[in-house]
Amino acid sequence: MATKVIPGLEGVAAAETRLSYVDGLAGELFIGGHPLMELAPNATFEEAAFLLWHDRLPNGEELAALKSRFQGGQELPRTTKHVLEAAAKRKAPVIDALRMACATLSLGDPNPDDITPAGQLRRAERICAAFPVIVASYVRLREGQDVVPPRDDYGHAANFMYMLSGEEPHADFVRAMDTYLVTAMDHGMNASTFTGRVIVSTESDLYSAITGAIGALKGPAHGGAPGPALDMVFEIGTADRADANIRERLERGERLMGFGHRVYKVRDPRADVLSQAAERLYEQAGDRTLYDLARSVEETALRLLEEYKPGRNLQTNLEYYTALVLHGVGMSAELFTPTFAVGRVGGWSAHCLEQLSHNRLIRPSSVYTGPKDRRWVPLEQR
Amino acid sequence: MATKVIPGLEGVAAAETRLSYVDGLAGELFIGGHPLMELAPNATFEEAAFLLWHDRLPNGEELAALKSRFQGGQELPRTTKHVLEAAAKRKAPVIDALRMACATLSLGDPNPDDITPAGQLRRAERICAAFPVIVASYVRLREGQDVVPPRDDYGHAANFMYMLSGEEPHADFVRAMDTYLVTAMDHGMNASTFTGRVIVSTESDLYSAITGAIGALKGPAHGGAPGPALDMVFEIGTADRADANIRERLERGERLMGFGHRVYKVRDPRADVLSQAAERLYEQAGDRTLYDLARSVEETALRLLEEYKPGRNLQTNLEYYTALVLHGVGMSAELFTPTFAVGRVGGWSAHCLEQLSHNRLIRPSSVYTGPKDRRWVPLEQR
Repeated sequence: MATKVIPGLEGVAAAETRLSYVDGLAGELFIGGHPLMELAPNATFEEAAFLLWHDRLPNGEELAALKSRFQGGQELPRTTKHVLEAAAKRKAPVIDALRMACATLSLGDPNPDDITPAGQLRRAERICAAFPVIVASYVRLREGQDVVPPRDDYGHAANFMYMLSGEEPHADFVRAMDTYLVTAMDHGMNASTFTGRVIVSTESDLYSAITGAIGALKGPAHGGAPGPALDMVFEIGTADRADANIRERLERGERLMGFGHRVYKVRDPRADVLSQAAERLYEQAGDRTLYDLARSVEETALRLLEEYKPGRNLQTNLEYYTALVLHGVGMSAELFTPTFAVGRVGGWSAHCLEQLSHNRLIRPSSVYTGPKDRRWVPLEQR
Repeated sequence: MATKVIPGLEGVAAAETRLSYVDGLAGELFIGGHPLMELAPNATFEEAAFLLWHDRLPNGEELAALKSRFQGGQELPRTTKHVLEAAAKRKAPVIDALRMACATLSLGDPNPDDITPAGQLRRAERICAAFPVIVASYVRLREGQDVVPPRDDYGHAANFMYMLSGEEPHADFVRAMDTYLVTAMDHGMNASTFTGRVIVSTESDLYSAITGAIGALKGPAHGGAPGPALDMVFEIGTADRADANIRERLERGERLMGFGHRVYKVRDPRADVLSQAAERLYEQAGDRTLYDLARSVEETALRLLEEYKPGRNLQTNLEYYTALVLHGVGMSAELFTPTFAVGRVGGWSAHCLEQLSHNRLIRPSSVYTGPKDRRWVPLEQR
C-alpha cells in the first residue's frame, strides 16, 4: 500500500484511452485521432460524437440513422420536465437544473436492464440528445417563456439554438456552435470525465455517471469560469485601457480568468480554434469590435503576465474564447458552463463506454493521519 | 507526465484523511480514531457523524442541537417529494430514486451561496437527515402506502425504521440499525467516497458530490451485492446442504457473494461487528435459526474456498452479515444498498468537508492509445 499522497493525482495515469490526446508541451489536441484544428471547424456534434463512440466518422446513412435516434432522445420523461418546471420556480442555476434533470433521465429509458454494449450506446445517444433540450427548456421556463420543441429538419447545434431563442438560427451561428461543441467534447482525463469513469467502474449506469460528471463540471476549478473572462474584456472596454486595468488586477494579486492551465504550457489549441471561429463569427455578423478588443486584451494580458510572473508561462486557455464565441451566438454568461456540458457529454459518454469495455474498479487508497487509540466514553461522561 | 497506467489506481494514495483507517492485513478499521469494534455497538448514527465532522464525540447539549437541526433537514423540498412520487409510478429502483431525490435537495437549501465551512457543515447535516426520509418515503409510495412523517422524539435510526414500517420499532432493532449505520459509515478511500472528493475538488457543491457518490455506490462492484449473499443462505436452507450447494457453485466457477475484498486479506472487521450484532438481534427476537444457518454456511464456504482456491485467502466480507442484520430488522434485499447509503452519507459528507478544508483539484492523466494522423474526409466521400 502506498504511503505518500500524490497531490491531485497529478501525473498519475488512471486509464488508457483512444478518445483524445492532449500534448500540453506541444499545445496539441487530437480528438478521435484527428487534429482538433482540422476536426473542429468541419465536424458537427453528431459526427464527432459518432467518431468517439465508433472510432471512425459516420457515412451519410449512419449519420441519418443517428439523427433519427436523437429525435427519440429529445423527448424528455414527464418527471424530467416537471423537475425543470419546479427548479425554474426556485430560479435554480442552469447547471443545477441540468444535474437534477439528468438524474431523472433513467425514467425514460425504454430498456434499463439492457447493459449490452449496444444498449449502453443507445443510452449514450439518448443522454446526448436530451442535454440541449434540458438546457434550452429550462432557460425558457425560468424566463416564463413557452418551451420550444426541437425541429426534425435541424441538426443538434441548430436545434439547441432554436430551442433557446425560438428563432431560426443563422447558418454561421450554427457552424460556430458546432465548432464550439466539438472543441469542448473531449480533453483526456479531466475531472468530470474521470468522475464518470470512476462511477461506471463500479458497474453503475450511465445516468449515474453522467450526473456525477455534471456535478464535477459545475465547480469553478473545472468548468465554471468562462463568464468572468468576458467580464474583464467588457470592463476594459477599449484597447487603450487594457494595460492599466490588467496591471491593477495583477498588482492586487488577482488571478486573470481565461489564462493558465494545469496541462498546457503553451497556448491551448482550443483557444486557437475558437479564436478563429470567433473571428469568422464576428466578421460575418458585420461588427469585429468585440473580437478585436478581445485580441488586444489577450496580447496585453500575455505581455503583463510574463512581466509580473516571469517564467510561469501562463497562456490563453479555452475559457477566454469560449466566452467570446458563445457571447457571439447570443448566449448569456450563465449558459457558458451548461453549453460546455452539452458538448462534453459526447466525451463523457464515450469514456463511460470505453471504461465499461475493459472495466476495472477505480479505487485508490488514502493515507491516515488520525489517532488509533481513542476509547468509547458514554454520553453522560462527555 | 506518467506513461504507465496504474490499473484501478490500486495502491495510489489519493488523499490524506483523519476520518478512517483500514488496515487490510491486520483486519482493523478505525473510524474517527476509535476501533470499530468499540464504536459500532455503542454509538448512534448522529454521534458517529458528529465524530467524523468534528473529530470528537458530542456532549449531550451538542447532540440535542444536532438532533434538532436534523429535524429541519427531514422536511424534503416539494420537488424532491414530487420526484419520488413520479419515480414510484415508474417503479424505479430505490437507489435510482435516492439519486434523483438527492440531486434536487439543493432546492431546499436555505442559503445555497454560503460556502463557509459552517455553511457546508449545515448542508452536510441536512443531506444526512434527508436520506432516511427519502428512502422510507419512496418505498412506501411505491407500495401505494401513505408516507409516514418522522417523529421528533425518535433518533435517526429509529425514525428510519418507523418511517419504513409505520410501527414503533423495538429498541433492539434500533440498536442493531445504529450499529449497522456506524459500521457502514466510512471505509477509507472507497470508490463512492473518492467520487465525492473528486467532485468537490472542482469547488462544486455537496449536493453534486453526494449525488455522484450515490451513483458509484449503486454499482454491484461497490455497494450492490448484499442481496445475493443472503439468497445463497436461503437457497441452502439447512446446514447439511451447505457443502454440496457451495461445491456446486464453485465447480461451475461462480463467485461466492459475501466473500473476498480487494483490501482485506483477513476477515473484514465489519463482518465481525455485524455478526455479533446479528447474533444479539436474532437471539433477542427468540429465533436463532437463520443466524446459526448463516454461521454454518460461512464456515463451509471458507473451508471450500480454501480447498478450491488455495492461497487466495478469501474471507467473509461486510456484505454477508449486512444482509443478515438488515433482514433481521425486517428489510427486503432491495433496501440493503440504499440503507448502506443512509449510513455511508455520514462518511461521504465528512470526506467532502475534509477535501474542501485543504483542497486541490483531483485530475489524473491518461495514456493515449489511438492514432494521431487521421485526416478530415467530407461526408460525401465517406
